[in-house]
Amino acid sequence: MTVEINKNFCSLEDNYLFSKIRAKKRDYEEKHPDQIIINLGVGDVIGALTESAINALKSGIEAYKSVENFKGYPPEQGYPFLREKIVNYYKKFNVNLDIDSIFISDGAKSDLSNIIEIFSDLTALIPTPVYPVYVDTNIIKGNKIKYLECIPENNFLPLPNKQLKGSYLIYLCSPNNPTGAVFSYEDLKKWVDFANSTGSIIIFDSAYEAFIRSGVPHSIFEIEGSENCSIEIASFSKRAGFTGLRLGYTIINRKSKRMNEFALCWARRQATEFNGVSYLIQKAGEATLTELGLAECQSKIDYYLKNAEIIKKVFIDKGFNVYGGTDSPYIWIDCKKDSWEFFDEMLEKYQIVGTAGAGFGKGGEHFYRLSAFALRKDILLAVNRLKK
Amino acid sequence: MTVEINKNFCSLEDNYLFSKIRAKKRDYEEKHPDQIIINLGVGDVIGALTESAINALKSGIEAYKSVENFKGYPPEQGYPFLREKIVNYYKKFNVNLDIDSIFISDGAKSDLSNIIEIFSDLTALIPTPVYPVYVDTNIIKGNKIKYLECIPENNFLPLPNKQLKGSYLIYLCSPNNPTGAVFSYEDLKKWVDFANSTGSIIIFDSAYEAFIRSGVPHSIFEIEGSENCSIEIASFSKRAGFTGLRLGYTIINRKSKRMNEFALCWARRQATEFNGVSYLIQKAGEATLTELGLAECQSKIDYYLKNAEIIKKVFIDKGFNVYGGTDSPYIWIDCKKDSWEFFDEMLEKYQIVGTAGAGFGKGGEHFYRLSAFALRKDILLAVNRLKK
Repeated sequence: MTVEINKNFCSLEDNYLFSKIRAKKRDYEEKHPDQIIINLGVGDVIGALTESAINALKSGIEAYKSVENFKGYPPEQGYPFLREKIVNYYKKFNVNLDIDSIFISDGAKSDLSNIIEIFSDLTALIPTPVYPVYVDTNIIKGNKIKYLECIPENNFLPLPNKQLKGSYLIYLCSPNNPTGAVFSYEDLKKWVDFANSTGSIIIFDSAYEAFIRSGVPHSIFEIEGSENCSIEIASFSKRAGFTGLRLGYTIINRKSKRMNEFALCWARRQATEFNGVSYLIQKAGEATLTELGLAECQSKIDYYLKNAEIIKKVFIDKGFNVYGGTDSPYIWIDCKKDSWEFFDEMLEKYQIVGTAGAGFGKGGEHFYRLSAFALRKDILLAVNRLKK
Repeated sequence: MTVEINKNFCSLEDNYLFSKIRAKKRDYEEKHPDQIIINLGVGDVIGALTESAINALKSGIEAYKSVENFKGYPPEQGYPFLREKIVNYYKKFNVNLDIDSIFISDGAKSDLSNIIEIFSDLTALIPTPVYPVYVDTNIIKGNKIKYLECIPENNFLPLPNKQLKGSYLIYLCSPNNPTGAVFSYEDLKKWVDFANSTGSIIIFDSAYEAFIRSGVPHSIFEIEGSENCSIEIASFSKRAGFTGLRLGYTIINRKSKRMNEFALCWARRQATEFNGVSYLIQKAGEATLTELGLAECQSKIDYYLKNAEIIKKVFIDKGFNVYGGTDSPYIWIDCKKDSWEFFDEMLEKYQIVGTAGAGFGKGGEHFYRLSAFALRKDILLAVNRLKK
């Protein structure tokens, strides 16, 4: 007998999706060093960071220069100055949180994975196609998974149905990655009611909420009854361009007796297995939530949404059925063929890198995702190539 | 049936040790607002950060100001510039690593916890008293734990013995937290041989290696045969004062066929459940591994070691048996009574906060840990109070 690897890793795809795409892009570049690839694949923001955030980083460094102001281990749940700003942010949506319900982290991806640890064995209920992290982390941790199909016929927004018996860890992502679909208040209410009546918990991934323009909910906590069954996981990556700085947070409403039990476990988990986020990055995060900071971020998001509009139109004009791209940076294209085949075609013919829908799992096999996180000139270049 | 909490959390102490100490300190301060407490409890460094690191942070910000140099999602395993510097650092100890064996993270605490996920169910073999994270994370993840006693009679350095049958995940920390004990080459070799002959894996926590002055090994990879059975988890926190910046790394030697299997799982785990460390912090880390940066760090460590020498002497003069404090920032005092009682006594009588040995688990019940991470003036103030 020896110490062995966790066999669940063998049930995963060989590579994390975006590692695979990077490898394909690299291969093509090596074979065609003269070609300029337009990368609309991975959902990474483009620079620069907002001025507010830059200024906060600059002045944040001052703290590390002196004994008196030095910042060592950060508070386990995050600095109160940042958590207060987050509480304020949610007031815009008529959501009243208390500061103890906010847990700062190094990003939504970490939290989405680590949060599973506070639950006993369970069945995850995951709409598919989906951000692969929900599926992969549940596989690694040995949970059962039940899938819900996201198809054009349900607007990529499956609802509770009578086949669902028992309690689940329900993953909802709105605005959705990869489909760009957004839940209405009414449909989210159906999920909250289902969760409360079955003892389920909703993991609400709100990473893209800042892209919402159509008046749908930004937060699960806008829904009546959600405080007793929901955990919201949020990120500064897409809202404020922090993909490279690493900052996110999780909200568990401590006012709910049931959820406070989970909050206590999560607090213990984070204090024991994580050591917080640097003061420097938290200061930058705070700056993006000031009035000025929010305006700067929204102007960047407007820019991305305009990108989405431009690129979406080309595919519509070419006769494709295209979804998303209005409350979301993602365009979800029904490519009518195998998605990796379409991926290769787009790379070979137009030197455009997107994401093959199959990478997002079942239901994505004939779809292709384009991201609007790009410079306008690259979007226009892509449009020109596609029009030829 | 509802989604329930992971019951393993109920087997943990109510609070993470250092949260408990902070609470006790806060209580005392509220009751005695006029008293000045000297905090030698939590092992947090004092400011300022080294000049090299400050300068690297300053110039690192530049990258976020422009589209051209913008740094988004960091490479999953860390930037090559930092991993190269780490490879170089180990050459000083005649350890040859390749860059792919280094995995950058936001700190040793995260890695010590997350690494468990790549193994199937196992028994952890943990010397005690010990840094509570080893125990707590294994409890949370439902592993069995076997303890090895660290006592004055074995110099707090237990060795393999005939009662140990089967394979284990073996935790070794040298220089040790909390006892300050350091393993010799010969004794580490016994552990490596044991691990190789039983199919065990050694988790070697080298967070305090920069404090070594006596010529004992800095890295498990100095030991012949270690590459086939060892994972080293290292940190910039104590070496370079990065407790507040958050930077660490894990080494799994990919040249070993057996260990490469674990490295592949770890790479997949990190790519899926973690999103890397910001360019800014990695640049600061790189700067601390230049010749100048290393010299600056060593001068700070000399300062802490001098602190340790000063405070250790007082307790020796008072007739206590005192350990550690030479290759380590920690002084381990045999306080001859219940350690929390001694903790309270030190707080009440001298307004000194240390750490009750019981907080480090079995074997710590009659010990008290003092940390040398303090300003010299506070160490001298503590000495004066203790001498009265």
